[in-house]
Amino acid sequence: MSSSLGTLFRISTFGESHCKAVGVVIDGCPPGLSLTEEDIQPQLDRRRPGQSALTTDRQEADQVTILSGTENGRTLGTPIALQVANRDHRPADYSNMRDIPRPSHADYTYQMKYGIRASSGGGRSSARETIGTVASGAVAAKVLKEKYNIDIIAWVSSVGEIDATDIDSETITSADIDKSIVRCPDSNATARITALVTELKDLGDSVGGTVSCVIRNVPPGLGEPTYEKLEAKLAQTMLAIPATKGFEVGSGFAGSRMRGSQHNDPFIKKNNRLGTVTNNSGGIQGGISNGESITMRIGFKPPATISLPQDTVDFSGEPAVLEAKGRHDPCVVPRAVPIVEGMAALVILDMALLQESRMALQFL
Amino acid sequence: MSSSLGTLFRISTFGESHCKAVGVVIDGCPPGLSLTEEDIQPQLDRRRPGQSALTTDRQEADQVTILSGTENGRTLGTPIALQVANRDHRPADYSNMRDIPRPSHADYTYQMKYGIRASSGGGRSSARETIGTVASGAVAAKVLKEKYNIDIIAWVSSVGEIDATDIDSETITSADIDKSIVRCPDSNATARITALVTELKDLGDSVGGTVSCVIRNVPPGLGEPTYEKLEAKLAQTMLAIPATKGFEVGSGFAGSRMRGSQHNDPFIKKNNRLGTVTNNSGGIQGGISNGESITMRIGFKPPATISLPQDTVDFSGEPAVLEAKGRHDPCVVPRAVPIVEGMAALVILDMALLQESRMALQFL
Amino acid sequence: MSSSLGTLFRISTFGESHCKAVGVVIDGCPPGLSLTEEDIQPQLDRRRPGQSALTTDRQEADQVTILSGTENGRTLGTPIALQVANRDHRPADYSNMRDIPRPSHADYTYQMKYGIRASSGGGRSSARETIGTVASGAVAAKVLKEKYNIDIIAWVSSVGEIDATDIDSETITSADIDKSIVRCPDSNATARITALVTELKDLGDSVGGTVSCVIRNVPPGLGEPTYEKLEAKLAQTMLAIPATKGFEVGSGFAGSRMRGSQHNDPFIKKNNRLGTVTNNSGGIQGGISNGESITMRIGFKPPATISLPQDTVDFSGEPAVLEAKGRHDPCVVPRAVPIVEGMAALVILDMALLQESRMALQFL
Amino acid sequence: MSSSLGTLFRISTFGESHCKAVGVVIDGCPPGLSLTEEDIQPQLDRRRPGQSALTTDRQEADQVTILSGTENGRTLGTPIALQVANRDHRPADYSNMRDIPRPSHADYTYQMKYGIRASSGGGRSSARETIGTVASGAVAAKVLKEKYNIDIIAWVSSVGEIDATDIDSETITSADIDKSIVRCPDSNATARITALVTELKDLGDSVGGTVSCVIRNVPPGLGEPTYEKLEAKLAQTMLAIPATKGFEVGSGFAGSRMRGSQHNDPFIKKNNRLGTVTNNSGGIQGGISNGESITMRIGFKPPATISLPQDTVDFSGEPAVLEAKGRHDPCVVPRAVPIVEGMAALVILDMALLQESRMALQFL
Repeated sequence: MSSSLGTLFRISTFGESHCKAVGVVIDGCPPGLSLTEEDIQPQLDRRRPGQSALTTDRQEADQVTILSGTENGRTLGTPIALQVANRDHRPADYSNMRDIPRPSHADYTYQMKYGIRASSGGGRSSARETIGTVASGAVAAKVLKEKYNIDIIAWVSSVGEIDATDIDSETITSADIDKSIVRCPDSNATARITALVTELKDLGDSVGGTVSCVIRNVPPGLGEPTYEKLEAKLAQTMLAIPATKGFEVGSGFAGSRMRGSQHNDPFIKKNNRLGTVTNNSGGIQGGISNGESITMRIGFKPPATISLPQDTVDFSGEPAVLEAKGRHDPCVVPRAVPIVEGMAALVILDMALLQESRMALQFL
Repeated sequence: MSSSLGTLFRISTFGESHCKAVGVVIDGCPPGLSLTEEDIQPQLDRRRPGQSALTTDRQEADQVTILSGTENGRTLGTPIALQVANRDHRPADYSNMRDIPRPSHADYTYQMKYGIRASSGGGRSSARETIGTVASGAVAAKVLKEKYNIDIIAWVSSVGEIDATDIDSETITSADIDKSIVRCPDSNATARITALVTELKDLGDSVGGTVSCVIRNVPPGLGEPTYEKLEAKLAQTMLAIPATKGFEVGSGFAGSRMRGSQHNDPFIKKNNRLGTVTNNSGGIQGGISNGESITMRIGFKPPATISLPQDTVDFSGEPAVLEAKGRHDPCVVPRAVPIVEGMAALVILDMALLQESRMALQFL
Repeated sequence: MSSSLGTLFRISTFGESHCKAVGVVIDGCPPGLSLTEEDIQPQLDRRRPGQSALTTDRQEADQVTILSGTENGRTLGTPIALQVANRDHRPADYSNMRDIPRPSHADYTYQMKYGIRASSGGGRSSARETIGTVASGAVAAKVLKEKYNIDIIAWVSSVGEIDATDIDSETITSADIDKSIVRCPDSNATARITALVTELKDLGDSVGGTVSCVIRNVPPGLGEPTYEKLEAKLAQTMLAIPATKGFEVGSGFAGSRMRGSQHNDPFIKKNNRLGTVTNNSGGIQGGISNGESITMRIGFKPPATISLPQDTVDFSGEPAVLEAKGRHDPCVVPRAVPIVEGMAALVILDMALLQESRMALQFL
Repeated sequence: MSSSLGTLFRISTFGESHCKAVGVVIDGCPPGLSLTEEDIQPQLDRRRPGQSALTTDRQEADQVTILSGTENGRTLGTPIALQVANRDHRPADYSNMRDIPRPSHADYTYQMKYGIRASSGGGRSSARETIGTVASGAVAAKVLKEKYNIDIIAWVSSVGEIDATDIDSETITSADIDKSIVRCPDSNATARITALVTELKDLGDSVGGTVSCVIRNVPPGLGEPTYEKLEAKLAQTMLAIPATKGFEVGSGFAGSRMRGSQHNDPFIKKNNRLGTVTNNSGGIQGGISNGESITMRIGFKPPATISLPQDTVDFSGEPAVLEAKGRHDPCVVPRAVPIVEGMAALVILDMALLQESRMALQFL
């Protein structure tokens, strides 16, 4: 179990779907930051279940409480514990899944790993686990905004076969994105996605999608080669989000089909630094930010828990048909948007702290 | 700088392209393992420059020496230091690049991060840095083979627009792969790739590609949710390889276009455990191995150093034309195969050691 | 801020003296362990303020709640969050200390380190921070007892000039110790210590002391040379307890005055293993447990907060007289006993998990 | 095996007594530092065997080579690998110790831990392992001197019953110390210690001692509560030195006998900061440096390897008499001086880097 992330801005999360509370402890938050629950709640609201007709019907207000680490609305530099209560459990919904591991879910692997598993709600593999990421990510994002003017913005770039088009990552805003019920800033695509997800929810099926993310105003120099290159840490954290199957930075897999003479980003002078004409690099060269916007895309599979009947076997290997009950999302990507932003913020702030230390003691 | 990887099988690498030596220290290798240089050299030979007409002309024998941690050909459980000398430097080749950062290379970002950089050879961003990964990965792979019969096999699955087809990841062997000069087990694709790379080398251009990898016979239970899920650590390490732009596990981005009812992998009984009928999960569910083969694909951009003239600017922002000298690969994926295998071995062994500890003290 | 400890049994603590709650998250607890609040509360009761006339008058029940990581009284192998509310704050007691840093306390250094500090109660430097150690240590001790039959027993071995005598570390029990109001198993010394502490409490002064600890039934092989030798990790954790000034293992400083021919512990056959005739080594040789009892001693300074007037200066450097209010212990060692035991348990279990992993994959 | 230390200035050591080489990789050294072998060699010379008639007769020049991480005498910010060859092995000296574990040495515990051990020379438990600490510590000390003017000075404060007296830790210099063949700046004590050690060397016996250390000019604010308090990390690293049995900071165990009213260090104004009148705190309050000199003392047992006959048992438990051959120190403390200094430098620099990062991003 490794529920911790980061070297200098280090978080440790806890909580199952159906225990008393989920939360996170942040160790290493810069002291003196103005911080109250109001700074954190909006991102949790974007993540919470039941926020629209297209998400799971589980209702959780997901109100966060700061237990420690602040006084009079300022951080003390000490560990900040954030907690959200679990309220709307319905363990009975899981009774028929006690004996039958859900295909492509974590029931079987958790049982094999730990020899025991939470009897309901997915335990630690539940999306509720991401509350810690989102809450601590909101704190990290606030530091990044105030100290570096960094913006981290994610959106739904595809659902199933439906792709958003004409998104300008240099100008897109969170307001643009939240206008869409599915957090897709292409209104035409939004309409088609809404129709598709509604249909699948009724059918008891699910669908995958992708989330794109841009990080703007990142100073050059972030990233710790060789094993903690900036894209390596982003890839790790994005693939730590439930249901992810792929990660691309900059040109991504499309770049693998190109020639160097096409793909290279020529340098130009931009204000008082060097910039690049194109951004196939996605803002990262040699594992280190170059000052251009960091761009990435994350692929999510369709949620594994569907109510359509599935031919499978039970834990003892006997054939069984599973019709999952419980309240589940037909498509996770709209709710994944704040999770992606949270992961990005956690990585960027940790890397910024590492680089600040280096710059403070360099001999130049 | 984070040149270390792993919790229990922990490696720390060192060395620039043009310093005295490159190498790695392994801390946590199981004691009593039979180990000599002969166990490590073959993978270094698959990685070394100058191994074929299609790679860089730099000639390095890359002979490894075990400095510590073994006695009479057995590991002592103490740190194993592995070292490879650098011999064929030609710093003069880099003289015209002192002032002009190579587009899409690490020259600019290293300078911004450290305020100083190796004046020749790419320093730590050079592919020579991967020697430590490959050497320590060979040790990890030996442990995995002897203790679990795990096979880790990577191959070139595309170069530019040319895709290998009809590869069966359940039966492919390293011998199949090494028959191909470009490590692509599809002979038709090999011929086309060879022609393409030869042409680009003559032109002074470069091209990207993808490497696929399968890990067979992985026991269920490996992977440490939530931030060190198995696919998360694989994604991190693969994106830590120079020139990588994307990572997919199992169905990957294609899975993001599917319905849950198509994508879910039904369970069936396989011998004395549960297996799955399909493997869209790529051998991992909930961040934990499920006993099926782990499958993944990594995208590499075209090498940034090309000898074609490039319009760019120098460090001071003045327009300049760069025609890179030095000896560089027109396509890195054939030499990336042992690096991908090394990263995979390092991750899997570390996760196996973590799980062994858990199983030893569980209360069941 | 590093409020985390351990590699495989990893804890992260949080909480100031006067915030909403203090607590700890345990990551890596073996799954399947029977665990409820009743397993943890007794050690917290031994640590809590107000437990006797000789301790601070602050009254805190220190009732622990398990928020996550268990189901039906069994651990799931997932993070276990433990929480204790803060109730009996009296911030007003600290009003005269806002401007005057207490001599030998952490007021000044916290202010210098963080540029801000908790305005009352000592914040994170308060002894309340040790609740996380004690609570998680109780969980670790339970695992150690059930898996290895390990006993960890600490006691007060001196207060001021008064030394306990005739303690047999091989047979002493917690019951023996808890018979004494000051946790000193020598009844004669107990009487003298009680009189001394009572007198000092009335005077508004304080006094130091030492705690001794034995760990019995430790298997050979624990400890991770070279930087995480067993005594090194014990020294680190003991010196992380507030008010500690010294650490000894085995013969300690007295051993520095001896000859090798006196100090060496000859081996003898004990049952089916080797043991030693004497135990100057304190159960550790070369940083690794040898199977004999581990013995150590920890020195505590007198508490810094005293109500006697002290001539000092305020934060601006102006002369001032400080007469501390608040409720403080005249002597911390009786309450330090469960803290020492907790630290020892955390170290030993982490080292045991590391060694189990090694043994599981050794080639012998 | 944990042969790594540090978070931001991180070292990883390797090497047994009788393998090809010993060394260390430093990850995180500030870039741009002027660094050549000449900066490192003097401390290795103070540590090397054979340096005087009072140490082991093993002759090793211990010449260090920088393999990586510098160019033109400046650090690049990349890993610095330092290496020292082993030359004067005499494995035959150990033939009679193959079957008989040396009392109070690591032969038995290494065998129990790893199931295998180096057949000669003590392997990793040999004092040769400390070369990595000393070499990397010399680099750390150079950074600390140039950036903060920090001085780290250790000396022999006792051998057996002979105590050095009248040492002023505020003014003592390395030159004062190195005038003494036993690194004791009290000439009277030096004479008595020299006579004692000479006698014991002839007898084949050994003796313990203590090393004291002062760290001057440390800025306030270093140390990471709660588990990585400054004294906690110093205690860990000092107890990681072979043969250590005790650690004290400031008043140490003597402080445990004092009253608060005696022990507290009143604040006074010193230049533009607060200082303290006395220094029972040893420069650390609440785990954080307060700007006063850090003072500590470390106790070493007598070396375990003596040539006097010892009644013991062999590995199978059969009675045996051991008369150790090989070349061993009768007293380790003179050679321990640079090791203590190295450990101190490694801790202080790591803590300084952590604090620089915090200060760079604080909101004040």
